[in-house]
Amino acid sequence: MSVKATSNGIPPPSFDLPLPDRPDIITANVLKLTEQAANPRHRFIFKALIKHLHQFVNETSLTTDEWMAAIEFLTRTGQKCTPLRQENILLSDVLGVSALVDSLNNPVVGGATENSVLGPFFTEDAADVDFGESIASEGKGEYMYVEGRVLTTDGQPIPNAVIDTWETDADGYYDTQYAERPHPDCRGRLRTDDDGRFGYRAVVPVAYPTPGDGPVGELLRLLGRHNMRPNHLHVVVEAPGFHKLVTAFYPEGCEFLRSDCVFGVKKSLVVNLKDIVDDEEARKRGFPRGGSFKLLQHDIVLLTEDQSATMRAGVEEERHMITQDHKKY
Amino acid sequence: MSVKATSNGIPPPSFDLPLPDRPDIITANVLKLTEQAANPRHRFIFKALIKHLHQFVNETSLTTDEWMAAIEFLTRTGQKCTPLRQENILLSDVLGVSALVDSLNNPVVGGATENSVLGPFFTEDAADVDFGESIASEGKGEYMYVEGRVLTTDGQPIPNAVIDTWETDADGYYDTQYAERPHPDCRGRLRTDDDGRFGYRAVVPVAYPTPGDGPVGELLRLLGRHNMRPNHLHVVVEAPGFHKLVTAFYPEGCEFLRSDCVFGVKKSLVVNLKDIVDDEEARKRGFPRGGSFKLLQHDIVLLTEDQSATMRAGVEEERHMITQDHKKY
Repeated sequence: MSVKATSNGIPPPSFDLPLPDRPDIITANVLKLTEQAANPRHRFIFKALIKHLHQFVNETSLTTDEWMAAIEFLTRTGQKCTPLRQENILLSDVLGVSALVDSLNNPVVGGATENSVLGPFFTEDAADVDFGESIASEGKGEYMYVEGRVLTTDGQPIPNAVIDTWETDADGYYDTQYAERPHPDCRGRLRTDDDGRFGYRAVVPVAYPTPGDGPVGELLRLLGRHNMRPNHLHVVVEAPGFHKLVTAFYPEGCEFLRSDCVFGVKKSLVVNLKDIVDDEEARKRGFPRGGSFKLLQHDIVLLTEDQSATMRAGVEEERHMITQDHKKY
Repeated sequence: MSVKATSNGIPPPSFDLPLPDRPDIITANVLKLTEQAANPRHRFIFKALIKHLHQFVNETSLTTDEWMAAIEFLTRTGQKCTPLRQENILLSDVLGVSALVDSLNNPVVGGATENSVLGPFFTEDAADVDFGESIASEGKGEYMYVEGRVLTTDGQPIPNAVIDTWETDADGYYDTQYAERPHPDCRGRLRTDDDGRFGYRAVVPVAYPTPGDGPVGELLRLLGRHNMRPNHLHVVVEAPGFHKLVTAFYPEGCEFLRSDCVFGVKKSLVVNLKDIVDDEEARKRGFPRGGSFKLLQHDIVLLTEDQSATMRAGVEEERHMITQDHKKY
């Protein structure tokens, strides 16, 4: 251990602070020191953070051992992260923080399709798929046909919108989770026609677990919570002049739908899968084995860039007003 | 990326949850799922944590970019940790959380000396030092003589108490921070005499910075806060039948005393250094160069194991009552 630290050159504060002989003086001193932050937004955020951290410790009368367990837990989550795995995001996800941040930053606007998490399984290399063609190789799962229109909030069709879509196979795995990946599978890129319509063959996606071999997996077991995500179909839609939509559709009926371990499901993104038991219809839709299939019919509504900018400006204005309200802390 | 996760086998909850279409439903759902934790203390702690995390996000209207910056920050603090460096503890320290946890778990009892942080610079190999001898090599700093008695809360002397003491040299470095360390320096182990007295020569410790080359160093700069600890003398005292005391004394007058970047200073641990300008007295005390020296006179009061156990039981009982109060969340 030969660590010689150096001063950051910042002088002691110009104001005086009492020496603590009570816990509440410690908290007041930390808050007062934070007044020195040059950026008002940083001041505001860190005062709020300190207030809540200290209230948490006070309200739980946290023991020294519990505090040390938290330090060790956070150290392990940080050290579990690699370029391919973000255990801290997973932690934020299972505590509902990611969903809350997403919800606050993306309020519902005028019937537009809500967004959902991108997740770690998107790839750039999906094949182009023509109208009615399949994104999944034969044998990857139960047949599902997906169709609908991409529309403006006024109900006008958006032609030539690009849809990227991906999903798990019947075993609950994305193609990238297999050691061998001869070609992209259960994913594709398609375009809407002149009426804004899209239609493609896929398979019914399957519920799957988040990684359970790290500290967040341990936490979920400690809390008696499963580590499953309900089955879903990812969809990203882009069209010139419109705000990019990143979302997913969650078929109703999945046993994990209401207890999604990362809280990604929104009410408006739950979709019905119709059971079509009609061999002729299955063959007409292009399913080689015929028999029956599930039908997912769902329109997608995009915000224009202007609508999105207006919504974001509203959120930003509200945030600015909140940050100005210094009296709070 | 070939990561196949497995289910932890926990079934979906037996109760129903609403699908969120508002932020507050997300928070309510996370809290409700946490009810499944088997251990009541875990339930209580995590519900409090979730409540405060979500309130923090709501009150600041945290942006997606700010959230991502927090994720990256926590990832870097975790990855900065090594067996010799704990950046997460440093983070907890500079946010005042460590001091608060310490304060709540170690309330002041009957005039006993309060404790303070052990810090990362204690070593086991300090030399034994006789009464009046020096813990510091000649030339390591300004002369300081330390004396006092180790007493019970009734004022009775505690003989044969073992005192471990260590400090920085005049450059603000502990001996372990030098690449070369021929022998332990500015540290020693001594014993009280039959009257509970101790006395030893040392040097005036010097203020020093906490590591500034990691994420916590960046955070302090962002907050406009210096990264200095005020100068202090570490003392650990052990005697059979008494509770081990880990503390430090902070000479008054240091410019960083009231803004200690880790909030380790307590009012009762601030000590006065008397300026003794008396060549004869300096030589009598054993300082080879004579001249002047600083005198630190401070008694140390230990709790018996019984007193400490009673205090801890009181804290524990209060904590238990807090934890039982489920209505809070």
